[in-house]
Amino acid sequence: MQSIQTNDNLILFNEACYSTLNTYLRDSNNSLIFILVDENTHKHCLPNFLSKVETDITIEILEIESGEINKTIDTCSGLWSVLSELGADRKSLLINLGGGVITDLGGFVGSTFKRGISYINVPTSLLAMVDASVGGKTGVDLGHLKNQIGVINSSDLVLIDTSYLNTLPKSQLNSGIAEMLKHGLIHSTSYWNSMLAVIKNNDINLDSLIHESVVIKNSVVTKDPKEQNLRKTLNFGHTLGHAIESYFLENLDKKDLLHGEAIAIGMILECYISHKLLQFPLKRVQEVVSVVTSLYPNVIIERSDYEPIIDLLKYDKKNEHGNINFVLLRDIGSYEIDCQVDNNLILEAFNYYNSNIKSS
Amino acid sequence: MQSIQTNDNLILFNEACYSTLNTYLRDSNNSLIFILVDENTHKHCLPNFLSKVETDITIEILEIESGEINKTIDTCSGLWSVLSELGADRKSLLINLGGGVITDLGGFVGSTFKRGISYINVPTSLLAMVDASVGGKTGVDLGHLKNQIGVINSSDLVLIDTSYLNTLPKSQLNSGIAEMLKHGLIHSTSYWNSMLAVIKNNDINLDSLIHESVVIKNSVVTKDPKEQNLRKTLNFGHTLGHAIESYFLENLDKKDLLHGEAIAIGMILECYISHKLLQFPLKRVQEVVSVVTSLYPNVIIERSDYEPIIDLLKYDKKNEHGNINFVLLRDIGSYEIDCQVDNNLILEAFNYYNSNIKSS
Repeated sequence: MQSIQTNDNLILFNEACYSTLNTYLRDSNNSLIFILVDENTHKHCLPNFLSKVETDITIEILEIESGEINKTIDTCSGLWSVLSELGADRKSLLINLGGGVITDLGGFVGSTFKRGISYINVPTSLLAMVDASVGGKTGVDLGHLKNQIGVINSSDLVLIDTSYLNTLPKSQLNSGIAEMLKHGLIHSTSYWNSMLAVIKNNDINLDSLIHESVVIKNSVVTKDPKEQNLRKTLNFGHTLGHAIESYFLENLDKKDLLHGEAIAIGMILECYISHKLLQFPLKRVQEVVSVVTSLYPNVIIERSDYEPIIDLLKYDKKNEHGNINFVLLRDIGSYEIDCQVDNNLILEAFNYYNSNIKSS
Repeated sequence: MQSIQTNDNLILFNEACYSTLNTYLRDSNNSLIFILVDENTHKHCLPNFLSKVETDITIEILEIESGEINKTIDTCSGLWSVLSELGADRKSLLINLGGGVITDLGGFVGSTFKRGISYINVPTSLLAMVDASVGGKTGVDLGHLKNQIGVINSSDLVLIDTSYLNTLPKSQLNSGIAEMLKHGLIHSTSYWNSMLAVIKNNDINLDSLIHESVVIKNSVVTKDPKEQNLRKTLNFGHTLGHAIESYFLENLDKKDLLHGEAIAIGMILECYISHKLLQFPLKRVQEVVSVVTSLYPNVIIERSDYEPIIDLLKYDKKNEHGNINFVLLRDIGSYEIDCQVDNNLILEAFNYYNSNIKSS
């Protein structure tokens, strides 16, 4: 698959990853290499990765515990200290080998250690491949609020080796599909239809769709790097999705949702709201319900959850002047940003969601 | 005094500060304004500042405890949480009103909250006016290691109102003079001579020299924003100076040094090393000793301190590949970067320093 040169970095796929990485390492004159992993990627991905890397530079492995719960400033502090103790300097390189937690948090650690060292992302989850790899968003959570602290700073390289997807549980793979579905909804009817067909046929080779998803995200980010306008469309499904994810994370009675599972719910809700406010076709809303219920466990949002979830919307990063700003769709590929939505309509959307989930 | 337009922002002086700030506030459409202070600037600077600000936007005051000891990630975490609780969004503005701790730490908090909000620096110490205001270096300490965590990201405006200097104790004022002396040594004999004359005559009006110091720093930063080369000269005196500052900070038996006091010692040591390695004129070394002893309390570095200070050099941010890189001078305005220095010569420099301090 064709490499993608973005404004800030180079995204490589499969066979091209390691040859380019090894050339990079030969030319970059790094003092030390640090590879950040969690216990899962340590076990399932690191051996393959190390077998492909050719360098004489000393490699140190840094391991953190997996899971969104560890995507915190405390984890960063631990890593900054270890980097310091192990003699990392400004010529050191950080390679983040893992899912979105590793690439987001590792990107922030690298971007801030001694005011910024070079880093490379090697996303191993589908979510990280299609979402976290492009656009340079790094960050950690603040309590249960997602990605509140971070910077925008791209990795030098992104290496997308889709063979790592074979190490993922099915639920993690499906979680990533949510962002690909979103790319279809905000950008391209043909891509949306391809995604539906692949899911329906249970096609396991996603490679070309992953590539296309990265192309879509990159074209959006390139046109609007500072998220003034078009880039906000990437938040489709995320306004309510993030609030739901945070709510389930902080609520000990609820099972944590994977990011994609929460975003999938958010997309149903925001498609329904789009239908009501901007005449987004009901047929498309039903397609979203249908594909979401085929991919994800049924999650009921109780009536008692509605208010606390709506309450969390006030922390959304798109908000301005106290207004909660939604991205809504008129049709696939046709959007409106900075939409305000009445709380009653959000409640109605929850009811629509629940009735459709229950009947599915 | 003439405003200075840098590559990234605008630096204003005295009377121009508030008219430009008020225009900025009128045009920027901010949702909320946060002013970060410590207990000293809250008492001595905030009333004057607020009396000059004309805006209808709600202003919230955030106070942290003064002192280098509080320039930590924990303090940042507290501020991020308070910003979040008070409803800060991406359209919020952070104004940092204080010395280098406030501007460095506040700059980092603003640059990372929701991946970056606008911020303005209002340096109230001489050190922050001539050093921290230009070049966008933000950061906090990691344990006793200075500025290990941060980003480079400039404030929208820098407001240098020299009337705030009247609120400073003499020791704080002198601390800032160290950086001005450094600007002379690395850049300009005429500026160096002007500084010596002003100090000798105990001239209290530093305004034009502050302006010139900012011009010097800006010209250096503009030519080399990423600190590949020329910008490293701004670290003159800081390689040993930072290590001494960290050592005195972490050593409970020692009285903490102000930043400028530590840098002044570092400059004597590095001038002496420059004399030995690059024939920097001994007469100039003696001038530095003379001005330092006239401005700062005599600090003896004990023989037992030498090794632990040298040991701290390994954390210097200029280091590469395990080498400790010094900036040294051939003469005023003539420098060499990335110099390696034998430990024995550093010990000899300590001895030179002590014998001159004792005899002064």
